[in-house]
Amino acid sequence: MDQSILDEIKKIENKVGKLSSAQKILLTTDGSVTTILDVLKGHVNINTLVQEFVPADRKMAHDLNINVGDTVNYRVVVIKSETPLIYAISLVPLQRLSNDFKEDLIRADIPIGRILKKHNIESRREIKSVYVQNAEEELKEIFQTDSPMLKRTYNIIHQDEILISLKEIFPYSLFQE
Amino acid sequence: MDQSILDEIKKIENKVGKLSSAQKILLTTDGSVTTILDVLKGHVNINTLVQEFVPADRKMAHDLNINVGDTVNYRVVVIKSETPLIYAISLVPLQRLSNDFKEDLIRADIPIGRILKKHNIESRREIKSVYVQNAEEELKEIFQTDSPMLKRTYNIIHQDEILISLKEIFPYSLFQE
Repeated sequence: MDQSILDEIKKIENKVGKLSSAQKILLTTDGSVTTILDVLKGHVNINTLVQEFVPADRKMAHDLNINVGDTVNYRVVVIKSETPLIYAISLVPLQRLSNDFKEDLIRADIPIGRILKKHNIESRREIKSVYVQNAEEELKEIFQTDSPMLKRTYNIIHQDEILISLKEIFPYSLFQE
Repeated sequence: MDQSILDEIKKIENKVGKLSSAQKILLTTDGSVTTILDVLKGHVNINTLVQEFVPADRKMAHDLNINVGDTVNYRVVVIKSETPLIYAISLVPLQRLSNDFKEDLIRADIPIGRILKKHNIESRREIKSVYVQNAEEELKEIFQTDSPMLKRTYNIIHQDEILISLKEIFPYSLFQE
């Protein structure tokens, strides 16, 4: 793994305290987070909070390497078992999706890891950043905690282009064992 | 994740006792195991025990979907930090490798997860089996323990073909936290 990501993990530990193995893995893995949650918490599912098509603004266009105004699927979900586990925001440039994939994404009730698997999509994941922040009000309410929030951003790359740009967030108080 | 793999995890727990989060993840992830070990144990490296080209026997040919007699790279390594962490056997049909990849594989000192990453290879991983067995003599000596051995087999698939078939083994006494 990139030394810079390992350094960030150490910085987080200096700020909030020791991270568990599960927390470290969830912040750095290049595998499916859905798969990990399935084995840790039993079969997980998602609550979709937002699902909409938006025209790419300047930042999205830059981050996704598309043109300003191109259509992006913007989705905010909470992955949960009995309680909320991970808050996830995804950006997907529609032009890069096959119709089957698009349909599953818009159905809105399937985690992205499971969609990739269903369609046998070969990809690689590039971790962009790992950090900790104080909880915003929305996250406090969802997770029912004031705990600091562990966050990471990464891209899922397919055919040498960013298929999905993701941000995942969970409270430091979760996955402590 | 496949329910059958979750069921196998439960069977293992019935046999040997509760698995830690790290153990469960290491047995079921479709991400890079090298990456996980890097974050848990510091930058890991490998000892190569065997590295040779062999003609595919009937079983290898069947498992890899190649012809009997086709050349396979057979590699046995121990991934380690200060102490041995995971014993891994890999089979790679040479005909499916680019020259760059082949060179890195034969250099023998780079974990496969890191080779895939270096070459930006898009892939998916299919977990085939997860199980526990008593330790063979060789494993007892390497890991210096009589602990039962947790094992899994999986394929790394690239361009719809098996690029690498893997078996990974570690003692139940490791990764318990």
